[in-house]
Amino acid sequence: MHASAGNSPLDMSATLADLPDRAAALHGRLAERTPRVHCITNTVAQAFTANVLLAVGAIPSMTIAPQEIGGFVAGADAVLINLGTIDSSRREAMEIAVTAANDHGLPWVLDPAFIERSRSRASFARELLDKRPRALRLNRAEFETLAGSAPSEVLAAEVARRHHGVVALTGAVDLIADGTHLAHIANGHPLMSRVTAVGCATSALVAAGLAVEIDAFTATAAALLICGVAGEIAAARARGPGSFAVELIDALAALDRAALTAHAKVS
Amino acid sequence: MHASAGNSPLDMSATLADLPDRAAALHGRLAERTPRVHCITNTVAQAFTANVLLAVGAIPSMTIAPQEIGGFVAGADAVLINLGTIDSSRREAMEIAVTAANDHGLPWVLDPAFIERSRSRASFARELLDKRPRALRLNRAEFETLAGSAPSEVLAAEVARRHHGVVALTGAVDLIADGTHLAHIANGHPLMSRVTAVGCATSALVAAGLAVEIDAFTATAAALLICGVAGEIAAARARGPGSFAVELIDALAALDRAALTAHAKVS
Amino acid sequence: MHASAGNSPLDMSATLADLPDRAAALHGRLAERTPRVHCITNTVAQAFTANVLLAVGAIPSMTIAPQEIGGFVAGADAVLINLGTIDSSRREAMEIAVTAANDHGLPWVLDPAFIERSRSRASFARELLDKRPRALRLNRAEFETLAGSAPSEVLAAEVARRHHGVVALTGAVDLIADGTHLAHIANGHPLMSRVTAVGCATSALVAAGLAVEIDAFTATAAALLICGVAGEIAAARARGPGSFAVELIDALAALDRAALTAHAKVS
Repeated sequence: MHASAGNSPLDMSATLADLPDRAAALHGRLAERTPRVHCITNTVAQAFTANVLLAVGAIPSMTIAPQEIGGFVAGADAVLINLGTIDSSRREAMEIAVTAANDHGLPWVLDPAFIERSRSRASFARELLDKRPRALRLNRAEFETLAGSAPSEVLAAEVARRHHGVVALTGAVDLIADGTHLAHIANGHPLMSRVTAVGCATSALVAAGLAVEIDAFTATAAALLICGVAGEIAAARARGPGSFAVELIDALAALDRAALTAHAKVS
Repeated sequence: MHASAGNSPLDMSATLADLPDRAAALHGRLAERTPRVHCITNTVAQAFTANVLLAVGAIPSMTIAPQEIGGFVAGADAVLINLGTIDSSRREAMEIAVTAANDHGLPWVLDPAFIERSRSRASFARELLDKRPRALRLNRAEFETLAGSAPSEVLAAEVARRHHGVVALTGAVDLIADGTHLAHIANGHPLMSRVTAVGCATSALVAAGLAVEIDAFTATAAALLICGVAGEIAAARARGPGSFAVELIDALAALDRAALTAHAKVS
Repeated sequence: MHASAGNSPLDMSATLADLPDRAAALHGRLAERTPRVHCITNTVAQAFTANVLLAVGAIPSMTIAPQEIGGFVAGADAVLINLGTIDSSRREAMEIAVTAANDHGLPWVLDPAFIERSRSRASFARELLDKRPRALRLNRAEFETLAGSAPSEVLAAEVARRHHGVVALTGAVDLIADGTHLAHIANGHPLMSRVTAVGCATSALVAAGLAVEIDAFTATAAALLICGVAGEIAAARARGPGSFAVELIDALAALDRAALTAHAKVS
């Protein structure tokens, strides 16, 4: 629990220049390797999350029955834990899944959805964070609840260092930090917050990315760039939030190096 | 439980003339104030309901965990109780939510989905009705199950008076009654019954309307007019029920005073 | 439990020639009779399954509360049991539903989703199979788990005979067997495996078909032909998996004899 504080995040501008290339490579690997991603997520987000994963080639499974979780996680390549709803049965399922993922050395992502609205959920999120998710994907309000103050580059890096994982703070500009590296991604579109489960599905894409890319910072930043660029392409074709959701799935499936390079706003 | 019967519903033709204007104003207020609507609804309807709320600017939350409901309702501006599925855990969650809503003076909507198919559900609907939802949104079969006979203007007004709320009976022509006022809305399209959860999402829109409009009759009628007009616009663009669902979300987001005025069939 | 083995499947080429006609007739009967299909299916698949049923005119209900299942099944025309997630409450609901369906002489379909990933689920699937579903809809991996070896025409026919029902094995070419009849359907499109719940919804369509066609082999083969042809039509219009899902619903609703005849690849 002691942060190895002191080192401020490095400037990554040189290395970040090739993030679009690395994101394109990761997108290609997802289609080739079709990793299995087991998602314990809320029922509102399940279908959209499954369709986002399928669009990029990953294979989702979604059971939340405590009796079955162990087997599903053992056969998976990555795991998503989304706190979109917590009751005693789901809590048990999440604990089994996290233990199984850690036992098998599988990457898992924590999405502490809506913890600013529920104290019991926030406290459970803190417990899970101590079990070292490979990545933590959250928004500003969720970050403030977890970290106790408004997000900053230094605070994001500190949270990342403390939990030995990557912090992916999404918003108008996404911030990705792992304690030594830092990236900003200014892609995306306001329509992304007008469709339910876009954030949850982004977390699932981070999990899929971690299944095919061992460098957790690259995997997380690439997944967020993929989402942001697909969001821009979809928004250009949409007439409102209904058609945007459809176009987003199509854009995620069709994404290539040229589109990622043309749209990327990484710094 | 004694109806203060006697007064027959007033003719509202004069006042109803400005319902399109009031609906447009309510639509604008939803986008401005982005009210939080907590929905306890069935898992089939959750994602579509969330997307309908997001389309008009409202912020949905959907947890059904009894442990979390209190906190979510306390932070909400309106509540939807949809009986789409009832087990002991959901029943407990609904009772907690209704008590919390009444304690905080929040408007809540009761949607007694499918009570004609389940006696235990019908009897639970009657218990909830006694706790005074601000509005009751239901279809013909559900009305008959609750009221014991086929719907009529007089019977709808009586149910509304008895429970001190608004009755919104949807169908080819929607009937809205609060005991003294009465409105008919002849908007909508048959495709609305070919997509799952359109009725459930309409109830959620009524809840959102009640969050930004203190007059419950106006809020309910305006929400139903918004749904009906959006349904007509969507049907004109759709090639079947799949594209209709997408177009409905787009139309709800884009709706304005001109479209509401041009399409409204209110009497 | 003794298979009346010996008779190898008959060649049906003569009879199968009119499957497109029979599928068109069944599609018309669904729209006319609007059968009620009660689905116990996983939460990921619920909304899409409901929309597929509504697209062809069937009326879905989806409650999984054990207390309510009996009443819903008694009022239904067919039942779907999809093992997409199994916990003690769902298991109880499924057992009540199957008993009620058998008591009322209603056709029911078993979809042993993902049994290759969970031993407890596979063993429960075997128990349910002994209760004689009218049809068993599954994919290759699920068939192997149930039957103990890779699918073949002879093995499919044997499973069908043993359980006195129809086996519908879906894949690039669908195989339908009832012990004496055999059909292959080579329709469909790879995009069907890039959208969640297409297989689950196909099983629901088989249940709807069984509600309006007493010959179980014809009902099952017709439902699979309807899905496959709609999938091809949708794929020709789609730009990716997002628009494909929308087009699939539209194509299912619009399907007619001409389209079925033009596309059918039955042998």
